[in-house]
Order: sequence, then structure tokens, then C-alpha cells
Amino acid sequence: MNTPAFEFSTQIEVRFADLDAYGHVNNAIFFTYLENARVKLFKQRFGPFLESEMLFIVVRSECDYLAPIELDDPVEISISVEKITFTSFTFAYRLHNGADKIYAKAKTVIVSYDPINKKPAAIPARLKLVLNGEMV
Amino acid sequence: MNTPAFEFSTQIEVRFADLDAYGHVNNAIFFTYLENARVKLFKQRFGPFLESEMLFIVVRSECDYLAPIELDDPVEISISVEKITFTSFTFAYRLHNGADKIYAKAKTVIVSYDPINKKPAAIPARLKLVLNGEMV
Amino acid sequence: MNTPAFEFSTQIEVRFADLDAYGHVNNAIFFTYLENARVKLFKQRFGPFLESEMLFIVVRSECDYLAPIELDDPVEISISVEKITFTSFTFAYRLHNGADKIYAKAKTVIVSYDPINKKPAAIPARLKLVLNGEMV
Amino acid sequence: MNTPAFEFSTQIEVRFADLDAYGHVNNAIFFTYLENARVKLFKQRFGPFLESEMLFIVVRSECDYLAPIELDDPVEISISVEKITFTSFTFAYRLHNGADKIYAKAKTVIVSYDPINKKPAAIPARLKLVLNGEMV
Repeated sequence: MNTPAFEFSTQIEVRFADLDAYGHVNNAIFFTYLENARVKLFKQRFGPFLESEMLFIVVRSECDYLAPIELDDPVEISISVEKITFTSFTFAYRLHNGADKIYAKAKTVIVSYDPINKKPAAIPARLKLVLNGEMV
Repeated sequence: MNTPAFEFSTQIEVRFADLDAYGHVNNAIFFTYLENARVKLFKQRFGPFLESEMLFIVVRSECDYLAPIELDDPVEISISVEKITFTSFTFAYRLHNGADKIYAKAKTVIVSYDPINKKPAAIPARLKLVLNGEMV
Repeated sequence: MNTPAFEFSTQIEVRFADLDAYGHVNNAIFFTYLENARVKLFKQRFGPFLESEMLFIVVRSECDYLAPIELDDPVEISISVEKITFTSFTFAYRLHNGADKIYAKAKTVIVSYDPINKKPAAIPARLKLVLNGEMV
Repeated sequence: MNTPAFEFSTQIEVRFADLDAYGHVNNAIFFTYLENARVKLFKQRFGPFLESEMLFIVVRSECDYLAPIELDDPVEISISVEKITFTSFTFAYRLHNGADKIYAKAKTVIVSYDPINKKPAAIPARLKLVLNGEMV
């Protein structure tokens, strides 16, 4: 039996200050949007399951820009889990307008890190269940 | 005999991301520039004199915008001390091009704050000497 | 008979990237929040009345910081009109939590500017009615 | 005979506002740094060769984070050309401390775009020579 895949969507409010001299949301700000969505996801979904002694560190991020975002554009980010390893997981992001227009596709690789032993550590078991879509 | 007045100048590098959709440095970024200059001043001038237990908190900031800043404009900030009270001091900033063009004039009021007793506290004596231009 | 005073409120979403190394929303970002609120106000209230050939330029901004804003804090900005002259108007902002906690009080002076003649110009008549609370 | 490979290095000044609540330069700001370096490179090296009617659009960016950057860290970005196609080129960036500490490795893919015909277009010939290290 299949479990429902993990998914999370949230809306982003474009600020005038996000625009650059081209009148579009600046390239770097796309990563601020990803972070914003990720922080909301962590708070809403992972909060109760997070072991407090573990850090989650972004070790890689990438973005393919498909269409510019303008001030009045609606922006929504949908996050899915692309890959899970023993100590890391990869989020795939779709930045879109809530309908069929996609502004960008992005990924971040996040490592579960033990700040006491100063090295990557196993993803907490219950978080893994959430990432696998086996627990909400 | 007069002591030389306190003064400090530093250059700011305009980033493309500082511009907004008008092609000028965004209004809010002017305050980022002030902060940048202030942090450098603290590090270079106040470092050795700062009592570590004291915080310096900006409680007010203001800026008069006189001319827009563009990407290739040279930007320099000159800081002088406008006022010193028992627990606070006021910096006056001039944002200029190193010559006679002034982009903005600004002020910040900074309070010396005791984080243990959670209230404003006397400015450390030696810092006061620096602010008064009686010590470098 | 009194006309209802002009007022406008909007919510601001705090982003993780707005925080600085103190874990609070950075001082300069308060001005980004003001701008965000102002842009929404212009779009929602002034849009239909704006003569397209006029620019509205912030010539002065100021902020008194009363309490730090943290990531999970609700933030709302309420704007009122403090002063109207022939060519300028002053907005007063209250940054608060939707209840009785005030994070900051701020003001911006905005000049009505004629980009063709390159000088300040009379505030459009219908905009003045809105600012005076005589028209919605 | 080999021509010297294209290379460009520039220093980045870390701002206090670049730090986030962890006390490190925020992940998204790394891309602001890349942009900053790229804009300087374009101005210094490509300026005279650029056909004015062509736009250069970042269609992809990626970054591997290797070590956190703190406020007082020296930051230098070295750019090399990794790949050139008919209508695009890929920059590889190394963010380092001027010595042997590497903070991050990054890439951006940039497309030569014809805004009139609204489609990718051949990279200008002389720019190609510069990117190939055959012309300074």
C-alpha cells in the first residue's frame, strides 16, 4: 500500500524591496523565498518531532529560473521530498503562481548535524517518517 | 584648548542588489549603510574600550534623502558625534561621494544598555572620552 | 460634521532573513516593512486616483524602536496621515502586534514630484481628498 | 600554444546585515555575493565588448556551502569560465579567504538573450574571445 507523499505549500508575499533594477525579483531573493517556505514547513510540520540537540544545515542549494517574478505576481512554493539518505535529505521546490505558471524549480540538500560531536548524524527517526509521508 | 572633534569616515560599496525597481539604492538600504559604517567604527575605534557586559542599542534612526545613489556612485559615510547624555549618544552621518555631493544626512540615537539589570546604564567612561574626541 | 480620518492597516510577514545576528529583525528592515505597507496602501487606496505623470518620493524617514521583533511575532502596520502640505504629506506608522504591543513608531515625508519639470508639484486633488479621509 | 585561462577575482565586504540569526552570512546572501562579483567582472572586463542590444540572463545558479562566513572574515570570489556554448556560458565561483580556506563553490549559467526577438542569441564574438582567455 502506498503512503501519501510528503508535500507542503505556502504563499510568499513579494516585497517591493525584493525587486532589483530590472523590476523583477532579484535572483538571490529566490533563495530567501525558499528559506522562508522551509522555515514555515519546519515550524508547522517538524516542530514536535525535532530532537532539540540536532541542527539542520543547508549544504547545497540550486535554482533554475524559468520566468521572472514581478511585484504583483502571486507566488506559492510547493515543497516535496526528493531523496533521503542516512544523514541528509533533499527538498525539491516549485515556485509557481498557484496555477500552471512556474517561476522556478529549486533544490536544497540539508544535513542533519550533531553540534556536540561536530559531525553529520542520523536523521531523527520520527522526522524520517514525516519526510517519507508516513506520518503527518 | 580645544580637543579635535570625533570623526570617522568609511567607504561603502554599492551592490547591485541594493538597487530597487527605480534603479536607485533603496530607501531602507541607506540604513544598512549607516549600520555598516557604525559597525566598522565600533570595531576600529571602540573595540579596546568597550566593557564587554554593555550593549549599545539603536533606539531611533532618521534619514533625510537628498539625492539618489546609483550603482556606480562612490559612497562614503562620515560620522560625527552630535550629542552625548549620561546613557546615550547621537551619531550624525553624512552620506556623500567623497567630494561635495551629499546623498543623505542621517542620525541614530544609541543607548548604553545593561543586559543584566535590563535598563539603560552610564556610557563607559573611556568610550565617553573617545566620543568627546579627547582620546583616539 | 467630522469626516472619518484616513487609516490603513496591513500585516507583515517576518522572514527568517529579516533577523540579524541578535536574533531580532534588523533595524534597517523596519524601513522595508514601512515601504511594504506603503506600497500596499498606494495600490489599494490611491491606485484609481493617481495621475500617472506624478512621482511620490520619500524625502525623509524616521523610526523610534520600542521593542524588538522576533521571528514568530505577529506584525501589523497601521498608517495614518499626520500632515498635508501643498506638495507633500507625512505618514505616521505604528508597528504593533495587532493588540497593545508596539514595536516601533515611524514617519515618512513624501513629496509629490513632477518628473517632467523636475520639481515638487501640487498633490493631485483627488488624492488629497483620500488623504483627508473625505473619500475612500 | 596555450592562451592563459580567463580568471577574475574580487573582494567582498561582509555587512552586519548579511548575517542571520545564526551569526553567519545567510545562505541566500552567498548568491548576492556572486552577483556582486559578476557585476564587477562585467563592468571591468566585458564593458567595451558588450553589444548594447544583448541581455545576459542568469538561468541557473547553484552553491555548495563548505564553511560558514562570519562578520570579520575576509571574503574573496574568484571566477573562472567552465563552459561556453553557442548562446550561454557557465561561470564557476570559488568563495575563499584569499588563502586556502574555501567557504563555498558555486556556478551560474548565463544566457545571451536578444530582447527584440525575445529568444537566446549567439554570444557576441569578442565577448567569446574574452571568455576563452584569448583577449583581456
